[in-house]
This record gives sequence, structure tokens and C-alpha cells, in this order.
Amino acid sequence: MARILITGGAGFIGANLTRRLLALGHAVTVLDNFYTGRRENLAGLHGVTLLEADARAPIEGAYDWVFSLACPASPPHYQRDPLFTLTTSLEGMRRVLELAHRCGARILHASTSEVYGDPLVHPQPESYWGHVNTLGIRSCYDEGKRAAETMALEYRQTFGIDVRLVRIFNTYGPHMDPKDGRVVSNFILQALRGEPITLYGDGGQTRSFQYVDDLVEGFMAYMTAAPETLDAFFTPRGCAIPVLNMGNPGEFTVRQLAEEVLGLLPESPSHIVFRPLPGDDPKRRKPDITWAKACLGWEPRVPLREGLARTIDYFRNHL
Amino acid sequence: MARILITGGAGFIGANLTRRLLALGHAVTVLDNFYTGRRENLAGLHGVTLLEADARAPIEGAYDWVFSLACPASPPHYQRDPLFTLTTSLEGMRRVLELAHRCGARILHASTSEVYGDPLVHPQPESYWGHVNTLGIRSCYDEGKRAAETMALEYRQTFGIDVRLVRIFNTYGPHMDPKDGRVVSNFILQALRGEPITLYGDGGQTRSFQYVDDLVEGFMAYMTAAPETLDAFFTPRGCAIPVLNMGNPGEFTVRQLAEEVLGLLPESPSHIVFRPLPGDDPKRRKPDITWAKACLGWEPRVPLREGLARTIDYFRNHL
Repeated sequence: MARILITGGAGFIGANLTRRLLALGHAVTVLDNFYTGRRENLAGLHGVTLLEADARAPIEGAYDWVFSLACPASPPHYQRDPLFTLTTSLEGMRRVLELAHRCGARILHASTSEVYGDPLVHPQPESYWGHVNTLGIRSCYDEGKRAAETMALEYRQTFGIDVRLVRIFNTYGPHMDPKDGRVVSNFILQALRGEPITLYGDGGQTRSFQYVDDLVEGFMAYMTAAPETLDAFFTPRGCAIPVLNMGNPGEFTVRQLAEEVLGLLPESPSHIVFRPLPGDDPKRRKPDITWAKACLGWEPRVPLREGLARTIDYFRNHL
Repeated sequence: MARILITGGAGFIGANLTRRLLALGHAVTVLDNFYTGRRENLAGLHGVTLLEADARAPIEGAYDWVFSLACPASPPHYQRDPLFTLTTSLEGMRRVLELAHRCGARILHASTSEVYGDPLVHPQPESYWGHVNTLGIRSCYDEGKRAAETMALEYRQTFGIDVRLVRIFNTYGPHMDPKDGRVVSNFILQALRGEPITLYGDGGQTRSFQYVDDLVEGFMAYMTAAPETLDAFFTPRGCAIPVLNMGNPGEFTVRQLAEEVLGLLPESPSHIVFRPLPGDDPKRRKPDITWAKACLGWEPRVPLREGLARTIDYFRNHL
């Protein structure tokens, strides 16, 4: 049994990870300020210690593992208070690194495919530097996450902290916030409610859709990997810190996604409507997961249709 | 007479700016911790108030203008303690923004051409997003500066702070630190000492070389511009914050620079030698200064040979 802290543990990914860790018999502490995390995501869970706190404040206690997930992650959430988003990303990262420096914890830090911005290379390998605007409407998230990666690198190099970076691509599944404006939850809710399904632009922009159980599986493989195993993989690749993409390389247009959802809900009267594309919206993004496969033997297993069906079930039961 | 704070005022650019502001009769306060700033840069100056402090700590007092220059800026300096560099960039920016939020100061923040990284577009206009590695040996500086730009944007949007960004390209002149490893000071010192002049790679990488008086002139034009003038320029260009490149678009190879220096010091016995290129070294960088010209009527005036001659004089007198 490990002592595990999950910052942002009441959010979408945190809620799924918490369930998995509890099932494995670990002692789980969730730190969350419920800015975007939701109390109902922790409802009915036994054995979770809740720290209701801002991730930007110093963290007490001692842990074996820390999953660093605290940050608003969907555009409507992270754009609500861009300064909060930026400082949560930067200071939240630093607090976790300081904690690990004090107690020797191993950290898995949730970075994001947004560090690649609107990429000029497809698919994106970890070695791709990205194409990001420092002064746009997505910058509070993208640049905060980029500088947090750099902070992790420097703490690792300076103090030998065992911190591992995962760049998470578009993920969906149970416990998503219905109000977070993500395309999967939007489409499912619109279809369940019989409202028009809104596509931005022509709907031809592609996305990868990773089912959350696959991601949690990847987290476990990554967190339990021995430091020597990671060093042996990353050092020859010129990486001073482990960094892995986790996402589903299956590429679908947003329009195809809408059609899949409608196909799974034949009773829905919804139809597709088009809206203008927001600023700096990436037109295409797809993970190269060669490294995660080679290093951890990990790859996503849940097909889109199956993951969508499970997610639709969740939303049906929680509306 | 304005009340002016210069964070990092004992550094190379700060020393030149301080002299200019004193000559104009302003009340100048320099905040510096002398991590890379040098006491001799302020020696003999009358009327400067010195605050010996870390730029990451809260700043007291009230000012009309703040020039935010505090951060190690040359690779040997900023790589000495990457975590200090990164946190100085991020927290130093934030402290200045908090100060302005409290006292209503106008800020000119020194960003850098390094936000463009190893650019894929030549020359670089302000609209170019850059090409930067989050996990390389330059990241502590590059990503710290990028996220600081984003922080300035968000403070401006959230609180209406009058903060203006300047992306400074390679600058040289009197008061450079002889030990900061910059190519101009290196070459001049090597030539003055009769040592070999070291070129990295084949010396064919190009740089722009801006004489510091030109930059200080640009700072004054930018800082004294009315907010309405800047808004009228930047808003139609889709910029929510003023951002201007300042550099000399004249492009020289590093090898040409070495030859210019040797030409100005015919008595020097030095000759050129070649060394391997360090990691992530940008192969080419050149400012597009169309915006600064159009917005401020500013452009560099000091030719390379003249600036080099003045800089050589300075180093001759300060060795």
C-alpha cells in the first residue's frame, strides 16, 4: 500500500484514477479546491482523505507517489480566470516539486498535448517543440503547462527529484464535467437532450479520443516503472527527464465523432449545426505513442464506439 | 521628473538606461541583487537609489514607470542556476505587475528574441509564435520569458495594467559583463588580450547586433508613447498587449563579427579558432522591426563598426 496524493483528484481524470488506486488498496489523499473539480466525483468513495485546498499553497504531509493533475484543463474553464489558470499551473507544479524534495515522493505530472499548440508536424512525437502563441486566448494554459514542464526538468536536474511528465491528449469518459465544453461531453449531452449538435468551423478538424481507462492504465505503468528502466530509455534519446505522450492515435474528424454519437443514440432527434471556429483552435492533433509503447508496453485498447457507449451510460445516469 | 524603478538596473542594459534617465533628470531607483548585475555599473552615479533585493520578493514603494529588466540573460549566466533563472523570470514579472496593480505604474517589460527560439521564419515578426524546446538547456530562460509574456497579458486583461512588452534582440555596448560569454564581448576581450577568437560551429550562424544606445532610445520612445497611441496601433493588429521587437536588422555572420573586431584592432595578434556548437543554439535570428518603426518611428542608427569601436574603448578602459 502506497501513500498517494492526487492534486486535482476531484476532476475528471482524478476521479477515475482515485477509483483505480482505491481498488488496488492504496491510501489515497485528494487535494482539490473544487474550482473545476466536483464533489460528486468523490461521492460514495470510502478511504479517500480530502484536503480542500488551493494547489498553489504549500503542501504538508509525506507521500510515496504524487499525481500532479491540478489545473483547469478545458477552454471554458481555463479561460474563465486566465490568471488563476496560469498561476495554478506554475505554482501548483512548484508546490508538488517542493513536497517531493522534502519527502522523496515520486511525481507523475500531467502535462498536455497543448504544449504542441497548433502543430506543424503530424503526428506529434515527444521531440517536437510545438507551435504556441504566448499572447493568445489559449496562452494561459499552453504557456503555463510549457513552463511547468521546464520547472519539472530543472527541479529534477537540480535536486534529483523523480518527476515524470505525461503529455495527455484529448481524453473522455465517465466523470467528465458536463459543463466543461469538451466536444465529447457536448455532443453526448446535446444528443441526450435532443438539442442541435454544434460543430465549430466545418467540423473537419481532427482529434484523437482516448478513453480514460486507457489513460489510467498508462499512468499506472508509468508510475510503477523503475527509475533505472526510464533512465535506460530516455538518456540515449537525449531526454534529461522522462516525457511520454499518452493518447489514442486513432484520428477522427469532429464531424465523425458527432455521427458516432448519433449512431449510438438512434432515438435522438438531434441534428448537426455549424458555428464559427474560435481563435487559435488547433486544426489537427494526433499523438505519436511510439515511445510509450516501447518504454512501457502501453497502448490504448478501448475502441471509440465502446468508450462512447460507456460514457453515454454515465451521462444518462447522471443527468 | 518621473519616479522610475529599474529592476535589474545594475545589469548591462540597466546601467545604460539608468544613465540616460538620470541625464533627463528623473528619480531613478535600481533594484538588483547583483547576481549578474555589477556594482561597478552604478559606480559614480549620483541620485540613484539602490534597493539591494531579489526581484522575486514583493516590491515596496510607488513609481510612475517600471522598467522590468531583472533576469540573467546570457547562457553562461542563466544556465548557472536554471531554477533561479526560471523563477526570477516568472516571479520577477509577477512582482512588478503586482506593484503596478497597487500603485498604477506603467511597465516596460524586457522580453527577448529567445521567445522565438530557433525560428523557422526569417526575419521574425512579433506575430511569429516561435520554435522553442521546453526541455532543453536553454528552456529555463526561453520558457520563463515566454510564460512571463503570458503573465503580463493576463494582468493587463484582468486588471488593466499598462504593461508593454519589448522583445530585445542581441545587444552590445559599454557595461556588458566581460564574463557573460556574449559573442561581442568575448571577441573584443580575446582580441584585446591577444587570445584566439573562438567561433562555435563554422561561424556561419547569423546574428543581429544592436548597439545599446539604440535600444535605450527605443525604450524611451516606447515608454513615453500614450496608451491611446499604442491601442490604436495594436488593437487592429489583433494584439491584446503591445509587443515590439527591438533589434538591429543588419545581419552578420559570427565570423564577420570576428573579422570586424580584428579589423578595428589591427595591433591584435589574435586569430580565429573553431569549437563545437552547443545544444539548441539558434542558427539564425533577425528582427523584423516594421512594427517599431511604424508605431514609434524608431529604428537603430548606430552602425556596427561605430558601436564596436565605442565598445572596444569601454573595454580598453575597464580591463
